[in-house]
Amino acid sequence: MPTGDIRYTSPPTATNNSSPIVAFEDEVWLWSQIKAEARRDAESEPALASYLYSTILSHSSLERSLSFHLGNKLCSSTLLSTLLYDLFLNAFATDPSLSLAAVADLRAYRERDPACISYSHCLLNYKGFLACQAHRVSHLLWRQARRPLALALHSRVADVFAVDIHPAARIGKGVLFDHATGVVVGETAVIGNNVSILHHVTLGGTGKAGGDRHPKIGDGVLIGAGATILGNVKIGEGAKIGAGSVVLIDVPPRTTAVGNPARLVGGKEKPSKLEDVPGESMDHTSFISEWSDYII
Amino acid sequence: MPTGDIRYTSPPTATNNSSPIVAFEDEVWLWSQIKAEARRDAESEPALASYLYSTILSHSSLERSLSFHLGNKLCSSTLLSTLLYDLFLNAFATDPSLSLAAVADLRAYRERDPACISYSHCLLNYKGFLACQAHRVSHLLWRQARRPLALALHSRVADVFAVDIHPAARIGKGVLFDHATGVVVGETAVIGNNVSILHHVTLGGTGKAGGDRHPKIGDGVLIGAGATILGNVKIGEGAKIGAGSVVLIDVPPRTTAVGNPARLVGGKEKPSKLEDVPGESMDHTSFISEWSDYII
Amino acid sequence: MPTGDIRYTSPPTATNNSSPIVAFEDEVWLWSQIKAEARRDAESEPALASYLYSTILSHSSLERSLSFHLGNKLCSSTLLSTLLYDLFLNAFATDPSLSLAAVADLRAYRERDPACISYSHCLLNYKGFLACQAHRVSHLLWRQARRPLALALHSRVADVFAVDIHPAARIGKGVLFDHATGVVVGETAVIGNNVSILHHVTLGGTGKAGGDRHPKIGDGVLIGAGATILGNVKIGEGAKIGAGSVVLIDVPPRTTAVGNPARLVGGKEKPSKLEDVPGESMDHTSFISEWSDYII
Amino acid sequence: MPTGDIRYTSPPTATNNSSPIVAFEDEVWLWSQIKAEARRDAESEPALASYLYSTILSHSSLERSLSFHLGNKLCSSTLLSTLLYDLFLNAFATDPSLSLAAVADLRAYRERDPACISYSHCLLNYKGFLACQAHRVSHLLWRQARRPLALALHSRVADVFAVDIHPAARIGKGVLFDHATGVVVGETAVIGNNVSILHHVTLGGTGKAGGDRHPKIGDGVLIGAGATILGNVKIGEGAKIGAGSVVLIDVPPRTTAVGNPARLVGGKEKPSKLEDVPGESMDHTSFISEWSDYII
Amino acid sequence: MPTGDIRYTSPPTATNNSSPIVAFEDEVWLWSQIKAEARRDAESEPALASYLYSTILSHSSLERSLSFHLGNKLCSSTLLSTLLYDLFLNAFATDPSLSLAAVADLRAYRERDPACISYSHCLLNYKGFLACQAHRVSHLLWRQARRPLALALHSRVADVFAVDIHPAARIGKGVLFDHATGVVVGETAVIGNNVSILHHVTLGGTGKAGGDRHPKIGDGVLIGAGATILGNVKIGEGAKIGAGSVVLIDVPPRTTAVGNPARLVGGKEKPSKLEDVPGESMDHTSFISEWSDYII
Amino acid sequence: MPTGDIRYTSPPTATNNSSPIVAFEDEVWLWSQIKAEARRDAESEPALASYLYSTILSHSSLERSLSFHLGNKLCSSTLLSTLLYDLFLNAFATDPSLSLAAVADLRAYRERDPACISYSHCLLNYKGFLACQAHRVSHLLWRQARRPLALALHSRVADVFAVDIHPAARIGKGVLFDHATGVVVGETAVIGNNVSILHHVTLGGTGKAGGDRHPKIGDGVLIGAGATILGNVKIGEGAKIGAGSVVLIDVPPRTTAVGNPARLVGGKEKPSKLEDVPGESMDHTSFISEWSDYII
Repeated sequence: MPTGDIRYTSPPTATNNSSPIVAFEDEVWLWSQIKAEARRDAESEPALASYLYSTILSHSSLERSLSFHLGNKLCSSTLLSTLLYDLFLNAFATDPSLSLAAVADLRAYRERDPACISYSHCLLNYKGFLACQAHRVSHLLWRQARRPLALALHSRVADVFAVDIHPAARIGKGVLFDHATGVVVGETAVIGNNVSILHHVTLGGTGKAGGDRHPKIGDGVLIGAGATILGNVKIGEGAKIGAGSVVLIDVPPRTTAVGNPARLVGGKEKPSKLEDVPGESMDHTSFISEWSDYII
Repeated sequence: MPTGDIRYTSPPTATNNSSPIVAFEDEVWLWSQIKAEARRDAESEPALASYLYSTILSHSSLERSLSFHLGNKLCSSTLLSTLLYDLFLNAFATDPSLSLAAVADLRAYRERDPACISYSHCLLNYKGFLACQAHRVSHLLWRQARRPLALALHSRVADVFAVDIHPAARIGKGVLFDHATGVVVGETAVIGNNVSILHHVTLGGTGKAGGDRHPKIGDGVLIGAGATILGNVKIGEGAKIGAGSVVLIDVPPRTTAVGNPARLVGGKEKPSKLEDVPGESMDHTSFISEWSDYII
Repeated sequence: MPTGDIRYTSPPTATNNSSPIVAFEDEVWLWSQIKAEARRDAESEPALASYLYSTILSHSSLERSLSFHLGNKLCSSTLLSTLLYDLFLNAFATDPSLSLAAVADLRAYRERDPACISYSHCLLNYKGFLACQAHRVSHLLWRQARRPLALALHSRVADVFAVDIHPAARIGKGVLFDHATGVVVGETAVIGNNVSILHHVTLGGTGKAGGDRHPKIGDGVLIGAGATILGNVKIGEGAKIGAGSVVLIDVPPRTTAVGNPARLVGGKEKPSKLEDVPGESMDHTSFISEWSDYII
Repeated sequence: MPTGDIRYTSPPTATNNSSPIVAFEDEVWLWSQIKAEARRDAESEPALASYLYSTILSHSSLERSLSFHLGNKLCSSTLLSTLLYDLFLNAFATDPSLSLAAVADLRAYRERDPACISYSHCLLNYKGFLACQAHRVSHLLWRQARRPLALALHSRVADVFAVDIHPAARIGKGVLFDHATGVVVGETAVIGNNVSILHHVTLGGTGKAGGDRHPKIGDGVLIGAGATILGNVKIGEGAKIGAGSVVLIDVPPRTTAVGNPARLVGGKEKPSKLEDVPGESMDHTSFISEWSDYII
Repeated sequence: MPTGDIRYTSPPTATNNSSPIVAFEDEVWLWSQIKAEARRDAESEPALASYLYSTILSHSSLERSLSFHLGNKLCSSTLLSTLLYDLFLNAFATDPSLSLAAVADLRAYRERDPACISYSHCLLNYKGFLACQAHRVSHLLWRQARRPLALALHSRVADVFAVDIHPAARIGKGVLFDHATGVVVGETAVIGNNVSILHHVTLGGTGKAGGDRHPKIGDGVLIGAGATILGNVKIGEGAKIGAGSVVLIDVPPRTTAVGNPARLVGGKEKPSKLEDVPGESMDHTSFISEWSDYII
Repeated sequence: MPTGDIRYTSPPTATNNSSPIVAFEDEVWLWSQIKAEARRDAESEPALASYLYSTILSHSSLERSLSFHLGNKLCSSTLLSTLLYDLFLNAFATDPSLSLAAVADLRAYRERDPACISYSHCLLNYKGFLACQAHRVSHLLWRQARRPLALALHSRVADVFAVDIHPAARIGKGVLFDHATGVVVGETAVIGNNVSILHHVTLGGTGKAGGDRHPKIGDGVLIGAGATILGNVKIGEGAKIGAGSVVLIDVPPRTTAVGNPARLVGGKEKPSKLEDVPGESMDHTSFISEWSDYII
């Protein structure tokens, strides 16, 4: 996680204090908030009430609601919703960090995406959020050496959400996949905490050899829409990757890389340093003037 | 809408005359055309006849056919087809401009996409067309302050078609989303009439602040595949954005912007002027020679 | 297919010997391998056994397994699984080259994608593989002048897998669509043998006129993620297109094109020649140092 | 309808006054009652709330609720819910007597079946009620000479509810089919008002000749479980048929027939007269003592 | 099959001539008839056209139509329609007598049931016909020693149609199950040719010992609604069993048994002889006057 | 439960010893037996393996298998399988007597029905068994005062299995519903242990007044097919009710009632006494000779 002079925008309890009790209280508060939102929406919109009751209001916890919703979203005629529901319930019961991560992710969407008008809206409708939670479960299966099942789940997520995150990839907390369609994250990729990744972003490999071959994304990084990062390169903490960039090199912390192929804003030798955490501030375009100067 | 010496290829009634009677006659003609096409196809291909009868031939109007088809395409185990069908029927009954726009869109696909061999083919199979009609309904719901329902519908479109248009975005008539997969259009974006947008195009925002933060696309614009346009920039009438471009600046009317970052063809000071309407001519690559000269 | 000093990594039987008997034996061997994998996975993972039996272990041949799996993946409420199953079974019975191509494709994924841990994993879970096999069937229908049915199937593939290959496009054998989401291949495009194409790749047209207007991709080509190739250009055998490139020009055999707009690595006059077949070696980034020198 | 000294238990408005305004007010009152019941149940049982909202609480009228519920109950993979929903909505709009009959039936269940704890319970869960409303629609189709559609709907009711009422059969209002499984009503059968019919009851024909060949059931009749009435016989107003009886003869008004073959209680010449309306009082067994005397 | 003076109503080819060529021509004629009926209905009723095309008009033979229709009727979330469709197609290909029996059954319904207005109506909508054809397939599986599959199919028929025929039961051709709901036929029961059986009929066993323990029904028998025949008793050719009878004894050929317990009409010693074949004439009630005399 | 000289055929542990440990061991043994059967069937019949894995072999206990199977059998588009699965899992966890009863019932089917060839066959395919287990859960809900949910579940059972047991009815253990179609059991009915009930049996009420109005069935009773028992009458332990009987009177223990209306075999004053337990011996017809003597 970024340190020093970086400004945090999320409330202290959510990110600074990771004791189990605080985390549990945090989830309890969030779940009650989600139910309150869903209740309000159900009252104002009867046509949606059935949907809100089946997905949120009839459940006793965030984990059960998520398991139900994902089971019904990801099922197919050969992978039944009841089987997937069971799988998700078991995963949440086995690994409490899944819930913590879901809570942190919900906060990330709510804080960073101005189009996200409520937690319940994110829980129900954001394919990036849902794909990421399903990934966390397939990652757990992968770590438990249940690879065929992990890959079958991964395949359903890739079909249903058009989000393709390899089960072995490791993803931190508070991660925002905005819009999410077309995201591809390879087997040995690692994504830190509080990262924001737009749609069509690729964290890809470089050949047909196995081994550690995908990018490592530091905490607080922002990766713009359509950016392609290839190979076992390191994107430092708090760095920013411009939309549409093709990155084949390491990017130092708190610097900006843009273009195809991507270069560092401010120059390779002494790149400009960012003052905020782009993964949280979501500022995609502040480098424009500087970049323009640099290129044209 | 572009004026002056721009050549129109669509028939006069479709674009020049917007009286209700003409519009109604236009729709009647188009619907009878669609039924004739479907009847011909059902006769030549019995395996498809059931599909053609259920989606087109059993319906009395374009609105009912579309409502049925979208209801069945977008339903899920928690949002039933009957509920969505009702929603679409009500929307078409409430706002006649939805039908007008659907008719204009059908004409746009048929005229501009050489792979579109019939109106019925577009109505049934083009995810860009279907996603756009569903968006128009979610936009109506948004304007009626039924936001949770608008967002739930938006989410289904994003899942099923991998097309992500925020319910608040405003879209004109005669708009072609070609291939459409991966299109992302943000909350405050505006798209004019007779625009053509290829797949993987992003009309995105620039940060986590709310407010007016997405592109404004003028009439007759053509945006090539994979182009990313970010921020509250203005793409002038009849402009052309090259495939894969990353546009962070205003583009004047009837000029071409290409590259990452995008620059104006012909130069910033005195960019070359286009003579046709690229959103209608669909000429993606006429700038190549000029561009090559400019860059290399 | 590339000739000369190019090293082949696939076994001789698969690529050098195309007699029907050898091909049949090759398929028999592969199918027995797939069943053995599925049996092993079913035993180790009871939760997945039902899925593995219904999709693989209950079937007597690769063709039946594929027909069943695609029928269930691509069906909708208006295009029933039984209808599609029939369609696929008939297609495989009509045209034996469909099976040969499926076998060659399975080998391609297994050999070139280090994340592909087994043939059965590819058969069940790889949307690129499945979309391509469904395309081959819609292409057969297209050639049989059953265009409405071909287009309806094409539409289902575009919805379910977010892979949009026009039924008329011609595709060789041993073709890998890695990740595959967002791939768009136009009507008059041709793809050779042993080609590897990453996700978000577009082989697109250049306007609204019909005729031969899409790229021709030679044998053994590798096209990186997000590359956009537009117009009736020719990408020579064994060429490589860098990720994110926008290609509007011909690329000679065994050369590399990168950038937006794409240029040849080594220069237009005397481009560097590749020594291996990139479509098989999958080496995406070996040109980096050279490229960097060239550009910055 | 029986006259004279027969005691009515239903409220005056429901049966004595058939002016359109009163009928409409009656339905409005009943629908508000059903919604209040559903709201109470949804609050007390969150697990059922989604079901109650989708079937009742999201609808604006009894007709829409019934159309939705029947459409979803009776649909199949080849007769879609959206098609049936449309069919039911149109039927209710075309023929207002369908609503009146539904209201009268709901009252009948609520008044005569002590296990019927609420109107909403009947509307949602009673297969006899639902099968009868679906029959009324297939009867309307039959009268409109849309026989193939009427028979297809009839077939779905026979499959789903195991209730087999020929579309041509005429059924009055305020009719209770208690339990309903196995009821068979033939083509030329007629059932009066305020009749109560238990499960496994057959109103059957007598041969393979066409023409008027099924029973005519007068107002206020009660037919016990498993009774079989064959041929064009007349069961008089207010008569009672004992459970398990096989009736091949006319039964005079307000008399009881029991046994296999059925005989009149009290004797053929001067059968005992009933004092209440058995179809409303539901008294199945008051004849036991008399019968025992008579037989043994 | 009854001989002598019994009048046959079915055409000679259908029952008298069993050469393969005649049988095949008979089926070809019938199938063309069914298609003609379906085409006429599709034209007159667009709302049903999709159903008629998917179930009949898109198929090349009666066997394929039946396999499709039964596969879609009997499937469940754990027994997929594609699996059942395969099973039925294989059965019809394996055993040609299944088609012959289906043809004879269709003729039986059309000739004996005045409510059966067309062959296509029977094929699509008659649960007795459909349950019987599915039984024939489960019987084939039983004879092939594939008992678990036979029983799974039997269970689906019992759920979907409420018709419970044990896979081991043997059933002749030209058999009519009228209305069919509630029919139960035990493991060692045998039913001859040209038999007509009404709904709620039981051919049951008598205890928990195995062995031959169910009724044997001769050719041309008519069994009325709700009749219960228990034990290894023999119902002679051309006999008639009255509705609601409980039969625990052998019934001689061409006699009538009625009542609970059933007795022979005309007396045990010299029962009245029937002159027609009741299984074909469907005369349920001609014995009434005689019976009445006998009992009362 | 019957006492004295009655011979029991079930093993001692199942019926005589009700300690929790023995019961648990009994269930463990039975579940391992079921899995062994299913494994054998899956090996011999690949077409059924998927079904057997999803319903039995992928589950860790009888309760989970039953919950899964019932959830998928009873679900509808408005009552999702995941919701029902949850409901069943919770019920089995809340009330251990549900498992005990299921085990006793499975033993009853296996011992008393010669057509029941294995426990797994009963668990998967017997609608009587499945309907009864679902009833036990709806009865639990009823006792927990969750009446709307109990009635919704009851309604699904009545639709899917054509078995209509009111949630309030009390049913003992080791109860066999043979064939089961058409069974109706009223609100205040009570059924003892080791009872066997055939199809079309009614335990019905007698009027529209509430209160205790349905039959009370003692232990070890056998009720033949189509029998109708009405009113708050008492059928004594070990009694037998003949098929098709209409019973309106009390029947003393170990006596037989037959006919319509039913009379005691041997006469009202000194009826014949049965020597075995008919509910277990399943001897339906031993009274025939005596009955015949009595009546004719």
